[in-house]
Amino acid sequence: MALLSVLTPVLALVLCLVVGFLFMRSRDAEAKLRAPGQTKGASKSDFRPWVDQDLQDDTEITAGGDEDEWVDGDEEEDLAHVPYSPPRYPEETMLQRSNDLYTLMNQRRSVRFISPEPVPRGVIDNVILTAGTAPSGAHTEPWTFVVVSEPKMKHQIRLIVEEEEEVNYRQRMGDKWVNDLARLRTNWIKEYLDVAPYLILIFKQTYGILPNGKKKTHYYNEISVSISCGILLAALQNAGLVTVTSTPLNCGPQLRLLLNRPTNEKLLMLLPVGYPAADATVPDLKRKHLDDIMVHI
Amino acid sequence: MALLSVLTPVLALVLCLVVGFLFMRSRDAEAKLRAPGQTKGASKSDFRPWVDQDLQDDTEITAGGDEDEWVDGDEEEDLAHVPYSPPRYPEETMLQRSNDLYTLMNQRRSVRFISPEPVPRGVIDNVILTAGTAPSGAHTEPWTFVVVSEPKMKHQIRLIVEEEEEVNYRQRMGDKWVNDLARLRTNWIKEYLDVAPYLILIFKQTYGILPNGKKKTHYYNEISVSISCGILLAALQNAGLVTVTSTPLNCGPQLRLLLNRPTNEKLLMLLPVGYPAADATVPDLKRKHLDDIMVHI
Repeated sequence: MALLSVLTPVLALVLCLVVGFLFMRSRDAEAKLRAPGQTKGASKSDFRPWVDQDLQDDTEITAGGDEDEWVDGDEEEDLAHVPYSPPRYPEETMLQRSNDLYTLMNQRRSVRFISPEPVPRGVIDNVILTAGTAPSGAHTEPWTFVVVSEPKMKHQIRLIVEEEEEVNYRQRMGDKWVNDLARLRTNWIKEYLDVAPYLILIFKQTYGILPNGKKKTHYYNEISVSISCGILLAALQNAGLVTVTSTPLNCGPQLRLLLNRPTNEKLLMLLPVGYPAADATVPDLKRKHLDDIMVHI
Repeated sequence: MALLSVLTPVLALVLCLVVGFLFMRSRDAEAKLRAPGQTKGASKSDFRPWVDQDLQDDTEITAGGDEDEWVDGDEEEDLAHVPYSPPRYPEETMLQRSNDLYTLMNQRRSVRFISPEPVPRGVIDNVILTAGTAPSGAHTEPWTFVVVSEPKMKHQIRLIVEEEEEVNYRQRMGDKWVNDLARLRTNWIKEYLDVAPYLILIFKQTYGILPNGKKKTHYYNEISVSISCGILLAALQNAGLVTVTSTPLNCGPQLRLLLNRPTNEKLLMLLPVGYPAADATVPDLKRKHLDDIMVHI
């Protein structure tokens, strides 16, 4: 008993130490978990008290708030300027052309049922070239299109994606899992990754390497590459090919290693490409009307 | 002393309670700070020690690691499926069409010098409709296109953007500021915001409102809207109009308020649209070659 009473202050000391340690630890964890962008957003709102919530959104974070304008070669202000006079059409022609493209693009659908028939390689080259005409922040052209037609490689990609998908679905579905198994299979089994003659894996280059060896941040690289993907989808539709836009981001690291891409490249999208299967179907859904997506002031 | 010794076990108990409480608290804090995507990534790396840095990249975080696939209406699995058979072209035609579109899109340039001449409103409607055919995560169609032709409103937009631009340039240039003033002016003065017959401000809807009033996260909303913007750029080029892609993200909050958009919408891009000015020029720059953007396996 006497011994215990002697120990009391020690016990108290231990208590203090533990409390202190755990506080440090939890603050540490917070710091580690905070993305650099968030810190940025915060510091910004410091000297701009009026700024509202929006400044905290993910765009702000990924953007870095620099290079507001994308004039191709914005960073190359010293480049000589040359006259620019693209073709100009009469108003009737403009209306006709814009309506024709709308009709064509409005037929585009995401298609899971792709035919194994071979597709001319020259067409794939042309659609990639077309995607490469997209604008990009400071003309960094931060995209790499990995076109996979080799069957073994396609299958390895399928295995990685399906494993990841199964994990996703199991986690997402929880209890419903057992009952919905049949329906889920149709979701996580991606036969088209074997069947489609081409898989196009689109990587964004998150930074470049300067001549002096330093890293150069590619601002807006994700937005730039997504814009490029939009043009790619238009080019595929224009050629009579189909695809389904997928973003298997959790597989990014594995697929990057499989395809031997450098660490500055992150997988953004995976597009299986080919002709639609003869018995292809799509869900019977509609698109929003013009009034639901456009506001005129 | 005797009292203290009696208290010892109590003190010990308190110690245990505090330790327990603080552990819970710190774990709490981590959970709160982790974005859904990160949780996934982190928990994943737990049972996958090999996973590399990539899992921490910003894509991972903004993506939320859900809804991997974009099949239009992925979330509407119960929708009836209908046959899908788009036009199919002979190989020569595919090659011709894909090459024609590449030629057209390769003429696209970001143009700062825009003519004040009016543009047929019907053409603008068609290009917005075309942009609206883009795929989106779970078919959420998370875009709003605000088309501004009213001169006073265009001017207010210009004032907000230029103020922000000046701040950017001043901060960015630091000492070089005074010397480079002349050159900078050409960068932050955006006359085209007054001159262009139309300004298209593209907002991403970061979440939707469910019938039960709850927020519904729009996964991949930024990627979806950027893809839509790529299709819009193709539609503008196809109609013989020019624009310059800009992402005035720091002005987002002010412009959102000016245009009276709801808080779930964030400005992603601002496109001044019109015919190129008669004396329009563009920097004389080149695009990467196919081999520099495509890898075939």
